[in-house]
Amino acid sequence: MSIIIKNGTVITQNEKREIVKYDILLNDLGVVEQIGKNLKEREAEIIDASNCIVMPGLVNTHTHVAMTLFRGYGDGLVLDKWLRERIWPAEAKLTNDVVEAGAILGMIEMLKSGTVALNEMYLKGMNNMMNAAELLNIRMVIAQGMFDTGNRKLDDELKSGKKIIDLATEHSELIQPAISCHAPYTASDELIIKGKELAKKNNILFHIHVSETRKEIFDSLKQKKKRPIEHLNDLNVLNEKTVLAHASWVTKREIKYVGKKGAVISHNPVSNLKLATGGIAPIKEYDTAGANVTLGTDGAASNNTLNMFETMKFASLLQKHKYWDANAIPAQRILDYATINGSKALNVPGSIKVGKKADIIIIKKTPNMLPEHNIVSNIVYASNPAHVEWVIVNGKVSLENGKVPKEKELLEKVVGKINEFF
Amino acid sequence: MSIIIKNGTVITQNEKREIVKYDILLNDLGVVEQIGKNLKEREAEIIDASNCIVMPGLVNTHTHVAMTLFRGYGDGLVLDKWLRERIWPAEAKLTNDVVEAGAILGMIEMLKSGTVALNEMYLKGMNNMMNAAELLNIRMVIAQGMFDTGNRKLDDELKSGKKIIDLATEHSELIQPAISCHAPYTASDELIIKGKELAKKNNILFHIHVSETRKEIFDSLKQKKKRPIEHLNDLNVLNEKTVLAHASWVTKREIKYVGKKGAVISHNPVSNLKLATGGIAPIKEYDTAGANVTLGTDGAASNNTLNMFETMKFASLLQKHKYWDANAIPAQRILDYATINGSKALNVPGSIKVGKKADIIIIKKTPNMLPEHNIVSNIVYASNPAHVEWVIVNGKVSLENGKVPKEKELLEKVVGKINEFF
Repeated sequence: MSIIIKNGTVITQNEKREIVKYDILLNDLGVVEQIGKNLKEREAEIIDASNCIVMPGLVNTHTHVAMTLFRGYGDGLVLDKWLRERIWPAEAKLTNDVVEAGAILGMIEMLKSGTVALNEMYLKGMNNMMNAAELLNIRMVIAQGMFDTGNRKLDDELKSGKKIIDLATEHSELIQPAISCHAPYTASDELIIKGKELAKKNNILFHIHVSETRKEIFDSLKQKKKRPIEHLNDLNVLNEKTVLAHASWVTKREIKYVGKKGAVISHNPVSNLKLATGGIAPIKEYDTAGANVTLGTDGAASNNTLNMFETMKFASLLQKHKYWDANAIPAQRILDYATINGSKALNVPGSIKVGKKADIIIIKKTPNMLPEHNIVSNIVYASNPAHVEWVIVNGKVSLENGKVPKEKELLEKVVGKINEFF
Repeated sequence: MSIIIKNGTVITQNEKREIVKYDILLNDLGVVEQIGKNLKEREAEIIDASNCIVMPGLVNTHTHVAMTLFRGYGDGLVLDKWLRERIWPAEAKLTNDVVEAGAILGMIEMLKSGTVALNEMYLKGMNNMMNAAELLNIRMVIAQGMFDTGNRKLDDELKSGKKIIDLATEHSELIQPAISCHAPYTASDELIIKGKELAKKNNILFHIHVSETRKEIFDSLKQKKKRPIEHLNDLNVLNEKTVLAHASWVTKREIKYVGKKGAVISHNPVSNLKLATGGIAPIKEYDTAGANVTLGTDGAASNNTLNMFETMKFASLLQKHKYWDANAIPAQRILDYATINGSKALNVPGSIKVGKKADIIIIKKTPNMLPEHNIVSNIVYASNPAHVEWVIVNGKVSLENGKVPKEKELLEKVVGKINEFF
C-alpha cells in the first residue's frame, strides 16, 4: 500500500539542504514518488505529520548491536578487568539465540531513537542478527570481525569472514554483507590485505577499528615503526569503501591520508569518553581534508545507549570543546554526518528525494523542540528519543506511534532469554 | 487525596542507598507516610509503577528558565556576536509576559525530563516566574542577578535583589527566595559582601557565576591580583549556602577553599561545552575536598535543553575523559549530585523517606533501560526523557502519563506569545 506523509516540516537533506512544508507520497514499492502540496492518492495510508519534523533516518556506522545484552554489565570496573573478568568470559559462552535476543533488544532501541541503518561488526550469531534485522525492518551492513592472533588461523578467519557474503544473499535487500578485520593489532598484515581484496572484489565495505587508544599508537610505533593509520595507508586499504572506527589518536599526516583517499571515519564520541580513551577524533579536520565523516554509537556495553541523537550532540559539543570554538562545526554539518554521510558510506538511501527508497523518520515537536528559531539546531542540540513517532525503512513502517509492532511481547521474550543467560 | 505508588523499583537515595521493591503511601499532605509491601488505603489514588523505577526527582541547581524562549536563537554565532547582536538586544525588550511564557515552556520541559526543583537566576519578570512555577507545580529557588556595572547603582540593585524576599512570601512553599550577584566581574566587592550578608540574615541561598571562562581568570589576576574564587574566599562569602555556578577554571588551592567551606558547586557541563569555555570543572576533586557537588543545565539558550538526565551523562563522561579513568566517578555518585546533593543545596526533600514531602518521579523501563544488570548505571548512562511517566512535587502530581495537565493548550498559548515577540 502507498503512504502519504501529510503536513510535516520536511528536512530533505538534498543538495540544497531544503526544508519544505510538503507532503510526501511513497508508492507501494516504498519509493518516494512525489513531494508536494496537498498530495492525494486513492487508498493510501495517511500519516498525519502535523506539528512534526519529517527527516531522513539516522545512520549508525559502527556498532555491535548484540552487545546490548551487556548494557551496564560490570560497569565501574576498569577496562582491563571489565574485559577479562566480565565481557570475554560471557562472550565465550554466548549462544546464537542469546546473540539474536541482544540484537533484537538493540534494534528496538535503535528504531525508537530514529536509526534506520547500522554498520555491525561481531563474532558470532551472524545469521541470527540478519534474522533480527529483517524481523524489525531495519537496514544492516554486517561483517564478522576477523583476527588471526592466538589460536585463530588466517585461512579459517577468511573463510568465516567470506561466509557472510553467501549468507547475506539468502536474506532480503535490508541486509548487506561487509568484510571486517577487528583491528591492526589483532589482524596480521596478510589478513588485512586479503580482507580488503575480498571486499574490493565483491564491491562491499571494509570495516576496521583503528587508533582508538594511545597505547595502540605506542605499540604500533614500537612494532611497526609506524602509526596505525599510516600502516593501513601503506597496506593500501584506505578508500571510500573503508570504515575506520574511532580513529581518534592521529597525526595531521594521517588525517591527510584518510582525506586523500576519501575513507570513511566512524566517530564514536560517547564510547570513547565512557572508556576514557583520552582522544577525541578531530572530525572537523578529517572533514576539511576530504574524509567522509560519519557517526556511530559503538556497542551499548560501552556507551550505554544506541541513541544517535545523543551521539550527534556529543560529537558536536566535543569539537567545540576541543578547539575552544563555539562555532567549530555548524549543526547542519553534524546532521549531515548522521544522515547523508552515513548513508553514502553504507550505500543506503539517505536524503528524501523523488525516486529514492524511503528511510524516513517522523519526530514530534515536543516542548524541548520549541520555539523553532532554528529547526536543525533543535534537532542536533535539543532532541531526544521521546519525539520519535514513526520510522519508515525501505518504504515500510518499522515504528508506529512510537512503538515497534508487538513491542511488549518481543521485549518480554528477548529480555527473558538474556536474563536466563546470566 | 492520598496516593499509593505500587509495585515500583524504588531508588530511595537514603543513607544506605537502598533499592527496594516496595509500595509508597503519600498522605493527603503530600508526606511519605509508609514504605512497604502491599500497602492499602481506602480512597487512595493508585499509581501503577510496575515495570517502572521510582526515584527522587532531579534537582537543577543553575538555570535561567525564561531563556528557553531563546533556544537556538542565533546559534552558530560566536559568543560575543551572539550576546551583542542577538541575546542582549532581545532581552532589553522582554516584557514580563514573555518572560512568563519562556518560563512555562522551560518548566514543562523540566517536568517532562524528571526535574522537580530549579535554582533560577534572571533579570526581570520575577513574580511572573513564580506564578509559572506554581501553575506547573515545580519547586523554584529564585534570585535576581544583581550587578552594579555601567549605569546600575549598588543601592538600586540591592533593593531589587531584596524585593524577591518579600515577593516570595506572597507565594506558596514551592517558591524560595535567594540572593544573587551575577559574577565577580560584574558585581563590586561591596555588592557581593552586602548581598551575602542579606542572604545570611534571611538564611537563604547566595548564587553567583564564577570562573566560567579563562578570560575571566586573566582579567581577575590583572585587576585584583587574585583568581575569582580566591577573591570570593577573601570576601568571606563561601559557605554551604553559596552556589558557585560553573567554577571550571580553578586551581587546587581554590578547590581546597571551596571544600573547606562546604560550598555548593553547580557544574554545568553541557553549557560549558556548547559555549566552548574550554574548562571542565574538576568535580571529582571538589567532591573529595568536601564541596557539595551538584549539577545544572544553565539556560536553554546555551545548552540547548533543560534535560538533567543528559547532564548526568555529560558530567560523568567528561570526568572519565578528563582523568583518563573509566572509573573516575561511580554512577551512584553522579546520581547523588543530581538528587540528594542538589536537594541539600536548595533545601528541598531529596531522598524518599518516611516523614519527608514527596518529590518523586516514576520512569518506565523502556528498552534502553534493559537488561537491568545495574539499575543506577542505566539511569545515569542510558536513560532519556522518553521514560518519564509521573512527576510528583510536594506530594502533588505535576506530570501524569508523560503529560503536564492541559499541556497542549498551555504550549500553544506560550509558544504563540514567544513567536509574537520575535
